Amino acid sequence: MQEESHFLIVGLGLLGGSYAQGLKRKGFHVSALDLNPESIAYALKQGWIDEGAVGFDEALVRQADSVVFGLYPQALLEWIDQYQDSFAPGTRITDVTGVKERIVAQVQGKLRPDVEFIASHPMAGREVSGVQYADCSIFEPANFIITPTSANTPEGIAWVKALAETLNFRHIATLSPAEHDKMVGFLSQLTHVIAVTLMNTSDNTHLVDYTGDSFRDLTRIAKINESLWTELFLMNKANLVREIDEFAAELAHFRSVLENEDTEEMKRLFRQSTQRRKCFDK
Amino acid sequence: MQEESHFLIVGLGLLGGSYAQGLKRKGFHVSALDLNPESIAYALKQGWIDEGAVGFDEALVRQADSVVFGLYPQALLEWIDQYQDSFAPGTRITDVTGVKERIVAQVQGKLRPDVEFIASHPMAGREVSGVQYADCSIFEPANFIITPTSANTPEGIAWVKALAETLNFRHIATLSPAEHDKMVGFLSQLTHVIAVTLMNTSDNTHLVDYTGDSFRDLTRIAKINESLWTELFLMNKANLVREIDEFAAELAHFRSVLENEDTEEMKRLFRQSTQRRKCFDK
Repeated sequence: MQEESHFLIVGLGLLGGSYAQGLKRKGFHVSALDLNPESIAYALKQGWIDEGAVGFDEALVRQADSVVFGLYPQALLEWIDQYQDSFAPGTRITDVTGVKERIVAQVQGKLRPDVEFIASHPMAGREVSGVQYADCSIFEPANFIITPTSANTPEGIAWVKALAETLNFRHIATLSPAEHDKMVGFLSQLTHVIAVTLMNTSDNTHLVDYTGDSFRDLTRIAKINESLWTELFLMNKANLVREIDEFAAELAHFRSVLENEDTEEMKRLFRQSTQRRKCFDK
Repeated sequence: MQEESHFLIVGLGLLGGSYAQGLKRKGFHVSALDLNPESIAYALKQGWIDEGAVGFDEALVRQADSVVFGLYPQALLEWIDQYQDSFAPGTRITDVTGVKERIVAQVQGKLRPDVEFIASHPMAGREVSGVQYADCSIFEPANFIITPTSANTPEGIAWVKALAETLNFRHIATLSPAEHDKMVGFLSQLTHVIAVTLMNTSDNTHLVDYTGDSFRDLTRIAKINESLWTELFLMNKANLVREIDEFAAELAHFRSVLENEDTEEMKRLFRQSTQRRKCFDK
């Protein structure tokens, strides 16, 4: 990544806006495309982008050597189909998609051979969306996962790593797309399924006066972007179904331990969960 | 509750210690019993109790007009069996037990008729135990639930309400023991079952480097006191088994929606969980 790099952000939402802000702070030239004129106007006013256009602008795409897609998965695939002819030769592309195996195969399968897509996942976010909530400080405590394939070059991988370093991510790691999707299936997607399911189990909103931090912590992520997460879940269906099945089997075991009043096994389960959870203390 | 009240705390752990500290600050005479000499010594040194004894002390029990049991449920029942003859006539008793129906019936069933047990549940705690972690400020954001029965007098109920006010609980409510146990079965016990089960589903401690706040929030309460919670779960078995079954059914529904790629129903479930969760925002 060179000092004179020209970045283009396609999709100026919470993440795209945070990328723009962070890159601009480091002195890069940053432009952006978004369907919403207000998002472009906001980022211009904040000084996060040098120029922007609503929808598509051939000149902005052609002048960029570095492109970050902040789009939802299906929109990203459609954009590549429609506009990839406009990329300058040698352009490097990355994304922010939370599931990797399928999107990486599809983008790399259809992309021009003189443009390189090095996929990555910034594990940062907020429970709100939109460029007006963008804030590049959300990257500082966060993980950044690079998921290269045999289609990638060492130079391309180094470029996306430098991007993560520029944005001050705490921890940069490399996983295969398959390893990545298995990991997020458990750590992120299963937890969202559980939170959503707990809220949907019964309408207990009348209990709000009695609610403590345990319930609030467990259901915080039940406020969820319906369109984005439906896409992400379907793209990782096999992993997520397997994780749900394993969790459901463990839950059935706990139920039977309780039903049979097997106090020794219940205590063993509590000791095991306590022991394992300690590894995750910050 | 009168200014010259003599309080006795039986069981000087996290909660018992916090009661002692809060009552002493308001100028009451406070004494304590605990099996652990170090706990008594600590509370004396902190100035939280005026006097204390290890194990049992007839004089301390007899001089008290107000008694708070900070014991585990089974230990509370055994203490009443063994020592209730020492209470002065007219003594008022409460507890801190997290499950009510069975314990209230058992204590009131065996208690001398000239001593009144008005059950209550301070919905406050920490993930640590022991008097050295006591801190009466944990009551300020917390709920206090009184669970009276036909065995209670208006004066007794007013006494325990005044106790909660003295300790600065944010919200004081009255529920029947059965309503209380149904509420904690969902809000507290089911959430602990889920957190423990998620940690026990598979040993994913190797994923610690990739873990974000979602997983940490969801599993914080998987660090759990094995002896106390085993007692509490068994005392609320019928409610908790039913809650687990309802949650498992909702989880099975989500799994089938995902398996069948029913995107419309998935989005509806996300919208519903988002809507309900908003009611629980502070």
